Amino acid sequence: MHLFHCPDLLGASVELPEEEAHHATAVLRLAVGTRIGLLDGAGTKAAGEIESASKKGCTVRILERVVLPAERSARIHLAVAPTKQMDRYEWFVEKAVEIGVDRITPLITDRTERGKLRIDRLQRVAISAMKQSQRAWLPRIDELTTVKHLLQEDLAPQRLFGWCEGEHRSLMERYTPSIDTVVLIGPEGDFTPEEAATFRNTGFHAVSIGAARLRTETAALAVCTWISLAQQR
Amino acid sequence: MHLFHCPDLLGASVELPEEEAHHATAVLRLAVGTRIGLLDGAGTKAAGEIESASKKGCTVRILERVVLPAERSARIHLAVAPTKQMDRYEWFVEKAVEIGVDRITPLITDRTERGKLRIDRLQRVAISAMKQSQRAWLPRIDELTTVKHLLQEDLAPQRLFGWCEGEHRSLMERYTPSIDTVVLIGPEGDFTPEEAATFRNTGFHAVSIGAARLRTETAALAVCTWISLAQQR
Repeated sequence: MHLFHCPDLLGASVELPEEEAHHATAVLRLAVGTRIGLLDGAGTKAAGEIESASKKGCTVRILERVVLPAERSARIHLAVAPTKQMDRYEWFVEKAVEIGVDRITPLITDRTERGKLRIDRLQRVAISAMKQSQRAWLPRIDELTTVKHLLQEDLAPQRLFGWCEGEHRSLMERYTPSIDTVVLIGPEGDFTPEEAATFRNTGFHAVSIGAARLRTETAALAVCTWISLAQQR
Repeated sequence: MHLFHCPDLLGASVELPEEEAHHATAVLRLAVGTRIGLLDGAGTKAAGEIESASKKGCTVRILERVVLPAERSARIHLAVAPTKQMDRYEWFVEKAVEIGVDRITPLITDRTERGKLRIDRLQRVAISAMKQSQRAWLPRIDELTTVKHLLQEDLAPQRLFGWCEGEHRSLMERYTPSIDTVVLIGPEGDFTPEEAATFRNTGFHAVSIGAARLRTETAALAVCTWISLAQQR
């Protein structure tokens, strides 16, 4: 059964978002009456039947709805500096969604080179990864955010940042699975000592992520994997 | 300092492998006298100085050698079914080398579709990932191997396989960091019940890897990450 993303699954019948409607009607050419699956990205799965399909759009009659329990006991928020190559960041988003993450913030740091990031593309990558892994949860993906702005937020209580300089306890020692967590991952060249000092002043602890030097997207996914799997132990 | 892979670092001066020599002389145009770093992929790092550089090759005078201690207390062997798209398997190899793995076996299973795999390309991906993460360890990458042939080997004592069918204890519960481990990851469509039975008869335990359905390469990297980081706790 084909799966589609539809943020609003309330009501007796729903309208697919433009891109999903186009995929259903123009690409897959699904006829009226076809049964499809729907995911709202916020924990609800539904089964529906195509009611109308035209160039104007695609409406689906809801046959049943299932609200799923949260997958994890605590939230995972990763703030990750953009990579030089966009495809590495897209890859990270795809894998993080498969493994499990609640929020991704592309982070502008002192040593961040890339000033732009196609958030719409990241959203699409996240949606297709959610469908592929048959998840009903879609993480929030923020616009590019400066360290300054991120730290002004009311962030999760367990605050960690990956840092290669100096000796730190490892993520694996530090991380407590039952507490909402935010982890900061720096760019190539890592965070500056000034940034590290700012993080520490706002309750963040530096952690190491294994012995080897990891690329930004590798470190981010390793953190995501450890944190997500540690909760499902 | 540029890093090069050179399997043989014994002797006062060494010859770079053809591809590395080409990269040093034709691509980077490094002159005689340039200092470079060398990794043998078996735990030795060296510093050297280019002695001769020509179309015929590149010889390097060894200035110092460091033999590094093993990174992990126990070996990690992953046997992973090929993915339909080659680039996903290459991606897995790159990331696994960064995070830490000792041996990768591309595994032919009942439901494996791809019959061929460019092992030479996987080798190149592994070498560049080793250099990038400044590792002195290069995993062994096997030729395509059938389940039957793999099981005839004297495999690591801790034997696990990812399986989506039925209820199993999780990898995170099952895995004991101090013991050499082999983990089998199936193709899209997973292992067949017959394969699972064969694995069990040869001392393998089925494990789950989190709640969600993961792609082959995602499951393989998640396993690699958990096992490698659990050892560095």
